[in-house]
Amino acid sequence: MSELITPRVLGGFRDYLPDAMMARERLMETARRVYRSYGFSPIDTPVLEYSEILLGKGGDESDKQLFRFRDNGDRDVAMRFDLTVPLARFSAMHAGELGLPFKRYHIAPVWRGEKPQKGRYREFVQCDFDTIGTLSNAADIETLMVIYDLLSAIGFTQNGQPQFGIRVNNRLILNGVLEQLGVAEKSVGVLRAIDKLPKVGREAVLAEMVEKVSLSSDQAAQVLDLLSSEADLDQLEKLLASNAKASEGVARLKELLSAAKEAGIPASAVTIDLSIARGLDYYTGTIYETFLTALPTIGSVCSGGRYDNLAGLFTKEQLPGIGASLGLDRLLAAMEELGMIGHATTPAVVFVPQFDESKLGAYMHLARRLRAAGIATEVYPEAKKLGKQLQYADRKGFRLAVIAGSDEFAKGEWQVKDLQSGSKEMIADAVLETRLLEILAAGK
Amino acid sequence: MSELITPRVLGGFRDYLPDAMMARERLMETARRVYRSYGFSPIDTPVLEYSEILLGKGGDESDKQLFRFRDNGDRDVAMRFDLTVPLARFSAMHAGELGLPFKRYHIAPVWRGEKPQKGRYREFVQCDFDTIGTLSNAADIETLMVIYDLLSAIGFTQNGQPQFGIRVNNRLILNGVLEQLGVAEKSVGVLRAIDKLPKVGREAVLAEMVEKVSLSSDQAAQVLDLLSSEADLDQLEKLLASNAKASEGVARLKELLSAAKEAGIPASAVTIDLSIARGLDYYTGTIYETFLTALPTIGSVCSGGRYDNLAGLFTKEQLPGIGASLGLDRLLAAMEELGMIGHATTPAVVFVPQFDESKLGAYMHLARRLRAAGIATEVYPEAKKLGKQLQYADRKGFRLAVIAGSDEFAKGEWQVKDLQSGSKEMIADAVLETRLLEILAAGK
Repeated sequence: MSELITPRVLGGFRDYLPDAMMARERLMETARRVYRSYGFSPIDTPVLEYSEILLGKGGDESDKQLFRFRDNGDRDVAMRFDLTVPLARFSAMHAGELGLPFKRYHIAPVWRGEKPQKGRYREFVQCDFDTIGTLSNAADIETLMVIYDLLSAIGFTQNGQPQFGIRVNNRLILNGVLEQLGVAEKSVGVLRAIDKLPKVGREAVLAEMVEKVSLSSDQAAQVLDLLSSEADLDQLEKLLASNAKASEGVARLKELLSAAKEAGIPASAVTIDLSIARGLDYYTGTIYETFLTALPTIGSVCSGGRYDNLAGLFTKEQLPGIGASLGLDRLLAAMEELGMIGHATTPAVVFVPQFDESKLGAYMHLARRLRAAGIATEVYPEAKKLGKQLQYADRKGFRLAVIAGSDEFAKGEWQVKDLQSGSKEMIADAVLETRLLEILAAGK
Repeated sequence: MSELITPRVLGGFRDYLPDAMMARERLMETARRVYRSYGFSPIDTPVLEYSEILLGKGGDESDKQLFRFRDNGDRDVAMRFDLTVPLARFSAMHAGELGLPFKRYHIAPVWRGEKPQKGRYREFVQCDFDTIGTLSNAADIETLMVIYDLLSAIGFTQNGQPQFGIRVNNRLILNGVLEQLGVAEKSVGVLRAIDKLPKVGREAVLAEMVEKVSLSSDQAAQVLDLLSSEADLDQLEKLLASNAKASEGVARLKELLSAAKEAGIPASAVTIDLSIARGLDYYTGTIYETFLTALPTIGSVCSGGRYDNLAGLFTKEQLPGIGASLGLDRLLAAMEELGMIGHATTPAVVFVPQFDESKLGAYMHLARRLRAAGIATEVYPEAKKLGKQLQYADRKGFRLAVIAGSDEFAKGEWQVKDLQSGSKEMIADAVLETRLLEILAAGK
């Protein structure tokens, strides 16, 4: 006998067992359904790309995080670390064929060789949607609506009320304010300081703006007062009227709020929050973050924004766009914590034991009938003792067992057992599907 | 200005544009739905594994096909080249937690560094389903039923008649016959010769069995006569009664045919074909291949079989199983050739142009109403000329445009234009969803 190989997975990687994978598939299906309902189309790109494509020329900072190697043809290749760079490469290659505006979603794994730590993995799935090739605020409004419909469809509503809040900002406002103060070139430093506001508090942010970014105390206070105020857009409009950039930012936010309201998004779901910074220099317009009412500390579960130039590395064509990404792993962790995830390990709801081995064909026939009625049904493969078979069904989390032995076959009826309550009911063969659908609907 | 990077993909890899990706997603969704309806659960495993896991100890033949490298922690890792070895590793690690029998499906990409050629890629998706941990023929019967339901659900039926044929064999029969002839140890050579039957013909196969496998001419003829005959299982049963192995093979095939018939699988969909060999030594019992009636030359689109010992590399526990795999790429190529794939590049069916820029919120509201009725709807982001907007809609393949300007808003009605026929219809706001659903259902 040869020696056994110890089965194990690489650090930072995970197996998904059925209960975890069913929850993931459900979430990805919901995302696909919502994205599609807005006309976003799916695309896919290779997991491996030329390293040059992923890193850009000379971009070595992210280098260490890449799974990068030489393939058998000695090409310098790497596994994608996000879906944005591949989208940029894809858009540059296919823009002519795709036509603009182009709306795509992409749900796929990415890899980063970061040090594994709690809640951070080297392999994880991103769920992105983007609208490329239009500057229109309609796309910004739609992005907000997609986020709203997505979180609602996932189940974050109660009595029709959203149990999440989408915070929206527009980068143009800060840029305009800094321009007005004559310190436009300091935006990255200011953003970096503001980003820390929830963690370090007002005084520390002011100090950083003065010490590291070289704003005057007065300028720092002005910026922070503006950003941390409960923004009244009408007031802001007057305040910033003399700056074109800031005015445009305010105008776009106003139009966003009014169109979203008209489209039926509850006002309680959307807050203007001028303090959200969302990355340092990639975004150039509207920015979104989404927090769960019951679990705000877990951070934003759906974030994104508008950018000016997606594919500048690959083409001279300016491709503006806007998009956001659902944080699949973070959201699943939250749903687990909030008890929103079932623990069945089978997608089937009806279990058919082999009570009488000689009736295998009849059980198989029954199961196909139920499947045709949309009821996922499993027939146990072995004619073990009924108790053993039902034990298996309990463990997997089936809802109902449909049982028949020779008595039942003779009478043309089935014994249906509720595996949660233990209650039993005899159902005539002719009405079995109808009655099972009733029981399943009632038990939801 | 920095130099641009030429956007390109690695040889043997592909981008999937919306039309191709929508067809792929549709196929994967159908597979998931059918697998789940039988109680198969989804799992996922890491794309990267220790090379030792994927190769087994010393297994260097497949080495050249692996994307294998040392990661930043100097671990010898590789990208999975199939979903079976990861399933073996997974089953060995988690069998206790999962419970047996364990039914899983896994739809995921795999990588092989083979020389790219027409129809063969270095990155492709596998759609596997397997039942682990039972020897029961019920699992073999169910596997046949899954294949039947899968091909039917994908659309290979006409007037209720299957447009595909599933060929079934049982490896035990050949093994029994060879045992009876006293040449049991020659099964691999015999299988290799028989595998070529459709390509090289009877004489060449006979010659190979004599010259390379050292069967006598008489033995070779006996084997080939048996395998290439239209098998009558009752006759075969008598003929092979003295050999336990072959008899079991025949008995399992007989039970499979009768249970499948009772379960409602049309007899025309299933053929016993003792000549199918399906790989050389992995399978040990029932074997399946599936051919399309309209395009048999494309090869089997869904294949699989029973194996004795899935995870022998990783555990002493014997894990028998049975499963099959849908050939996604081959099937898509066939469907493309048979005109079964639409060429819309959007998943949305209704297009709402911005006819009147001031009504953006109203268009957004309309679109949400239609989405709530299950009608995927896109609002064009820019208020361009109507003709330009409709051009975009035509190009993407929307079915209907729903148009309103100030006249229509005043009257509370919408103009609905069929983008294929060009016909127009005015529909009152109150009945819009109902009427659109009718039009869409009629046009299917």
